[in-house]
Amino acid sequence: VDLQSISKLTTGFSGADLNNLVNEAAILAARRSKTEIGASEFAESVDRVMLGPIRRSRTTTEHEQEITAYHESGHAIVGHVLEHADPIAKVTILSRGATGGHTRSLPEEDRRYWTMNQFKDMMAMAMGGRVAELSQFGEGEITTGASNDLESATNMARTMVTRYGMSKKLGPRTFGKREEMVFLGREISEQRDYSDKVAETIDDEVYSLVGEAYQRASDVLANNKIEFGQLAKYLLEHETAEGDVIKGLFNPPSAPDDGPTPTADLESSPAV
Amino acid sequence: VDLQSISKLTTGFSGADLNNLVNEAAILAARRSKTEIGASEFAESVDRVMLGPIRRSRTTTEHEQEITAYHESGHAIVGHVLEHADPIAKVTILSRGATGGHTRSLPEEDRRYWTMNQFKDMMAMAMGGRVAELSQFGEGEITTGASNDLESATNMARTMVTRYGMSKKLGPRTFGKREEMVFLGREISEQRDYSDKVAETIDDEVYSLVGEAYQRASDVLANNKIEFGQLAKYLLEHETAEGDVIKGLFNPPSAPDDGPTPTADLESSPAV
Amino acid sequence: VDLQSISKLTTGFSGADLNNLVNEAAILAARRSKTEIGASEFAESVDRVMLGPIRRSRTTTEHEQEITAYHESGHAIVGHVLEHADPIAKVTILSRGATGGHTRSLPEEDRRYWTMNQFKDMMAMAMGGRVAELSQFGEGEITTGASNDLESATNMARTMVTRYGMSKKLGPRTFGKREEMVFLGREISEQRDYSDKVAETIDDEVYSLVGEAYQRASDVLANNKIEFGQLAKYLLEHETAEGDVIKGLFNPPSAPDDGPTPTADLESSPAV
Amino acid sequence: VDLQSISKLTTGFSGADLNNLVNEAAILAARRSKTEIGASEFAESVDRVMLGPIRRSRTTTEHEQEITAYHESGHAIVGHVLEHADPIAKVTILSRGATGGHTRSLPEEDRRYWTMNQFKDMMAMAMGGRVAELSQFGEGEITTGASNDLESATNMARTMVTRYGMSKKLGPRTFGKREEMVFLGREISEQRDYSDKVAETIDDEVYSLVGEAYQRASDVLANNKIEFGQLAKYLLEHETAEGDVIKGLFNPPSAPDDGPTPTADLESSPAV
Amino acid sequence: VDLQSISKLTTGFSGADLNNLVNEAAILAARRSKTEIGASEFAESVDRVMLGPIRRSRTTTEHEQEITAYHESGHAIVGHVLEHADPIAKVTILSRGATGGHTRSLPEEDRRYWTMNQFKDMMAMAMGGRVAELSQFGEGEITTGASNDLESATNMARTMVTRYGMSKKLGPRTFGKREEMVFLGREISEQRDYSDKVAETIDDEVYSLVGEAYQRASDVLANNKIEFGQLAKYLLEHETAEGDVIKGLFNPPSAPDDGPTPTADLESSPAV
Amino acid sequence: VDLQSISKLTTGFSGADLNNLVNEAAILAARRSKTEIGASEFAESVDRVMLGPIRRSRTTTEHEQEITAYHESGHAIVGHVLEHADPIAKVTILSRGATGGHTRSLPEEDRRYWTMNQFKDMMAMAMGGRVAELSQFGEGEITTGASNDLESATNMARTMVTRYGMSKKLGPRTFGKREEMVFLGREISEQRDYSDKVAETIDDEVYSLVGEAYQRASDVLANNKIEFGQLAKYLLEHETAEGDVIKGLFNPPSAPDDGPTPTADLESSPAV
Repeated sequence: VDLQSISKLTTGFSGADLNNLVNEAAILAARRSKTEIGASEFAESVDRVMLGPIRRSRTTTEHEQEITAYHESGHAIVGHVLEHADPIAKVTILSRGATGGHTRSLPEEDRRYWTMNQFKDMMAMAMGGRVAELSQFGEGEITTGASNDLESATNMARTMVTRYGMSKKLGPRTFGKREEMVFLGREISEQRDYSDKVAETIDDEVYSLVGEAYQRASDVLANNKIEFGQLAKYLLEHETAEGDVIKGLFNPPSAPDDGPTPTADLESSPAV
Repeated sequence: VDLQSISKLTTGFSGADLNNLVNEAAILAARRSKTEIGASEFAESVDRVMLGPIRRSRTTTEHEQEITAYHESGHAIVGHVLEHADPIAKVTILSRGATGGHTRSLPEEDRRYWTMNQFKDMMAMAMGGRVAELSQFGEGEITTGASNDLESATNMARTMVTRYGMSKKLGPRTFGKREEMVFLGREISEQRDYSDKVAETIDDEVYSLVGEAYQRASDVLANNKIEFGQLAKYLLEHETAEGDVIKGLFNPPSAPDDGPTPTADLESSPAV
Repeated sequence: VDLQSISKLTTGFSGADLNNLVNEAAILAARRSKTEIGASEFAESVDRVMLGPIRRSRTTTEHEQEITAYHESGHAIVGHVLEHADPIAKVTILSRGATGGHTRSLPEEDRRYWTMNQFKDMMAMAMGGRVAELSQFGEGEITTGASNDLESATNMARTMVTRYGMSKKLGPRTFGKREEMVFLGREISEQRDYSDKVAETIDDEVYSLVGEAYQRASDVLANNKIEFGQLAKYLLEHETAEGDVIKGLFNPPSAPDDGPTPTADLESSPAV
Repeated sequence: VDLQSISKLTTGFSGADLNNLVNEAAILAARRSKTEIGASEFAESVDRVMLGPIRRSRTTTEHEQEITAYHESGHAIVGHVLEHADPIAKVTILSRGATGGHTRSLPEEDRRYWTMNQFKDMMAMAMGGRVAELSQFGEGEITTGASNDLESATNMARTMVTRYGMSKKLGPRTFGKREEMVFLGREISEQRDYSDKVAETIDDEVYSLVGEAYQRASDVLANNKIEFGQLAKYLLEHETAEGDVIKGLFNPPSAPDDGPTPTADLESSPAV
Repeated sequence: VDLQSISKLTTGFSGADLNNLVNEAAILAARRSKTEIGASEFAESVDRVMLGPIRRSRTTTEHEQEITAYHESGHAIVGHVLEHADPIAKVTILSRGATGGHTRSLPEEDRRYWTMNQFKDMMAMAMGGRVAELSQFGEGEITTGASNDLESATNMARTMVTRYGMSKKLGPRTFGKREEMVFLGREISEQRDYSDKVAETIDDEVYSLVGEAYQRASDVLANNKIEFGQLAKYLLEHETAEGDVIKGLFNPPSAPDDGPTPTADLESSPAV
Repeated sequence: VDLQSISKLTTGFSGADLNNLVNEAAILAARRSKTEIGASEFAESVDRVMLGPIRRSRTTTEHEQEITAYHESGHAIVGHVLEHADPIAKVTILSRGATGGHTRSLPEEDRRYWTMNQFKDMMAMAMGGRVAELSQFGEGEITTGASNDLESATNMARTMVTRYGMSKKLGPRTFGKREEMVFLGREISEQRDYSDKVAETIDDEVYSLVGEAYQRASDVLANNKIEFGQLAKYLLEHETAEGDVIKGLFNPPSAPDDGPTPTADLESSPAV
């Protein structure tokens, strides 16, 4: 087993998570009557450890499958096209735990810093799901499925302007005092130490950043309508698409692939 | 017994609820000298488990019966007519627990996402009770009976704009930080992290959404005056109307019904 | 003993209250050397159980007696004249517990809903005491005695606009999140979830509702000056007036009364 | 001993206070070699029980004695002249406990209600001390000694507008929810349930009420300059003046007094 | 030993403080081989008890000594010149505990009241340190050393307007409710019970009072430039100057002094 | 060993820190087969005690090394050039604990006071990192690495205006009440006791101070482009640069150095 790629797959895992991963992979290998755990067993067990087992028993309607397929395709296409978003490793409409489907991007390197460009592309990628629903099903049919995406984009925008000084209007400073209320057993993350006028400017900047992300996601999907539809249809048929499938939509391969490369990495991907 | 339809009836039940349901149905079957619990015993026991026993001892005046009948008919007619609201399964003016009467809609499928259209129709259905009182008894005679409807519509509107990004004015973002204060033994659902100006816009959007829902409920009842009155009168006579009765008001049946279909489902219906 | 009328008298009583009532009535019957507790013993014991024993030891000045008499007459006359207020059962200037005097209205039926008209008449009735003081003694001599009346009218107005959607300006929605802070052993009734602009509109609506109630109370007393003065004088002489006395002021009886009818009912009367 | 007058002197006393009073009076009687406690022993012990022993050891400068004399005379003259303030029973510049001196008014009757006129005169009387300092020593020499007076007048004004509906601008309603936080072992008296605009109007009304009280106190002292000066000089010489002395300044007695009448009563006097 | 002057030196001491004082004085007397504790031993021990031992080990630079000397001279000159500030007893640049140096004023009498003039002169004296730094070293070189002075002047100004009614704009009333949160083991001194508009006016008044104090301190130092410089130089040479030295700068003595008079008194001096 | 210089290195160390330092130095000496701990062992152990061991295992990309090198060079160049910032002792891109790299300045003396000029230069030095990223990599590539710098500059600016009276607009006063909530086990540093208008002015002043610092850092780096680039390249090659290296960039040495001087001092350096 290639330890390097397993370590890449498991960035952010705790010791207990790693333990679970080995157990799950061993069970999978046993089911396959293998005497050794291979890279593929590890790769397939990562999702199970992170998100829980696949939930097929839940009777999802065909229409909801379709919503999920377009929603996830929206994330994947925007994430693939934008320069500073990490490459897409996998997108699926299989339901695990509380998720309907998910899209994973794989950072090409360990990262200590995040740049403004990366934030902006990640936010656009988060918006991809809602934009996909709107363009495919119309305004009245947008769903609650984008709730986590919107929250994660909002938090990114807020952090950019209040902790990383990435707003020109607000200047190179931080806002709010982060508190750790040990007494209450959990962190209350911010005590407001600024005026309501600054609160308004923060709101304006967040509004403008999420608006920009939304617009960029819209542009990407409008400019890549064909691949967007192809990916959604692929998902409805195969449930899961590895990164190579997505690359293939844009650059059809001339030579055959030697086999799947396990490249899923949970860290640094928004929970989409 | 058809397990499929019982499972539909009991969406959202806890293990303890299911246990109670079986007990109540068994008691009912015994009273009826049946040796087996039939589908009808289950169907009739669901209300008892969810809302408590029927309260006949309370001496309700004729006028209050009338108010309840028109109020519930308002919900039922609006819910029946609007496209994205779930079909009405049952409406009753029998008092159980704290409720004066109730109207139940039955989702046709398990649902993972909710669309904006569904929210809007559910809100209009919630407004149906108040609108019915107003149109039947006049402005001074509107009652406190709509309190839960108004609260539920307000919460839906608020959630649409603060968690689901369904307001164009406020943009595709979330507002407020949801807190779980373990220390206090319960959730305090929102910490305000925005300016008072945004709070005003949220108020404006909620005002506009509940206003739109109210107007749509008014239009539906005005355009279906005859059926609205017929249903209220039916309720005053029979206390309860199954979904077929309501359908029959709009499309009078040409052939006889074979018997009642147990279709009550509590989940996803507003507590009206 | 007519159980029906005792049950009417004791709406809202707890088990302990009922127990006290029977004891007090038994003591009273014994004092009167009766072998059975009669309806009159029950009726006379209700006040004692609800408000405490009569406080005659407190040396009230003649002027304060006069204030009380006009104040309570104000409540009673407004409550009698307005259509949607419950009929007056009894008015007294006997001091019990913390009260200087009190006026009781008796709902004619158990009530599940309250209408807007009922709220408005109850608020006007609550204003009757202050208006009576003002018209009888002049502006500088208005007293602190109206404090509970003002609080109860304010709460009714606030509830109408924030929980029952009875304000057109604010629309058919609810405001504020009701909290139950179990941790602190008591309920903190409202968490503000709206902007300061909405808070202003709520204030405006409450102001307008209490102002309207005040004006209506003023009009009633001005239009019924003679009966108002007669009732106050009757109270100064007899301390207590049953509902029939008040009715008699407006429709002088042509035939004699057979005797007093116990009609006091505490529930649904504002604490005036 | 005349129990009636002792009971008047001790309005508001707890059982323990009464016990102390008897003890102190007995000690005083013993010192005077009397075999019975007389009315004068009771009267002289009331101050000791309420405010603590006289503090002569504290070396007060002549100038501070003078400030106290004019300050207390200010209270006494305003209280004497204004119609709805209770008659002055005693004024002293003897220091007891935390007080530099004090002025006592004696209500002529037990009181259940307070009128607006009474509040206004009590507020003017509270302002008398500060006004006296200003007129006697000049603006730069006003002192911290008026702190309790200002707080008590502010509280009265606030209560008039927020609990007793005595402001026309704010209308006949109450403001704020009174809380009792049992958890914290004490009452937090008000939870704001109104907008900042209403808070401003409350501030304006309080400002206007204390300003009016201040102006009235100024007018009284300006119009009674001679008696004001006479009383201050009397206090500097005799330390204490009974109510008769003050009356005498305004209506010089033609016949001799038979002796002092114990009339001190603490209740209903502002802590001045 | 003259008990009178020791008692003056120790105003505000607790029993434990007094005990420490006697011990320290005894140790000092023993070191000096005296058989009795003299007045000088008491005087010299007061500082040690109040502020801690002298900290010479800390290697202060020459420049910081200079800053301290001018800063303290600023306090002392302003305090000496202004009429309503107490006479200066001692000024030193010896570091004790957390202080870099300190200036003490000695009230000529026990005080029960404070006048507005006294507050104003004390505030100007507090500003003397910062003004001295500015005038001696220039704007960019003002230091953090004035932090306590600014806080104490701010508190005085705030108290004048919110507790002592010394602002014409805000009127003769108090602001805020003082709380004692026993539960939290300490006092939280103020609960805001006024509008934001009043909060602004309070800010304006505090701004204007500290500004006035700053201007007066500037004027005094500008008008007494020579003495200001002389005192700073004296301190750099002798570390400590008794009150007579300062008086001598303004009124050069014609006759010799008989010896030092211990006059230090901590009470009523701002912690400068 | 020169105790003087060790004490300089360890300003701000606790007893436990000193103990750790001696242990680390002893281990280092042992590894080097020395029988005595030398000054160099102490110097090298200080970083390990303060920030934790070097983290080489973390696979940092070349690009992130470059970011760190320019970021730290930005701090170092600005700190070196500005007159009132302490001289730079060391700058490194070695990662220890949570830091990517760090820059240390060494105060030339123990300090009791901080001047406004020193605050301003320290703030500019803190801004040096962000400015360096911007000028080297462009606006879209600014990173999250400046987060601590921005927070520390913001806190300095805030403290200048709210505790040290260093803003002309806000005047010589303090703002906010510092609280120590013992109950919660930690300090909540500020209770707002001013209006929202003052909060706005504080925001404006902080904005203007951090803006000025940012501009000054930009100017310094623009005017010292060559040395800035040289230092970053030196760091990419050697990982660490002592203060002499930086001095050498500006004043190339004509004579050889005798050896390294251990001059690192953590106290008074912003955590950059």
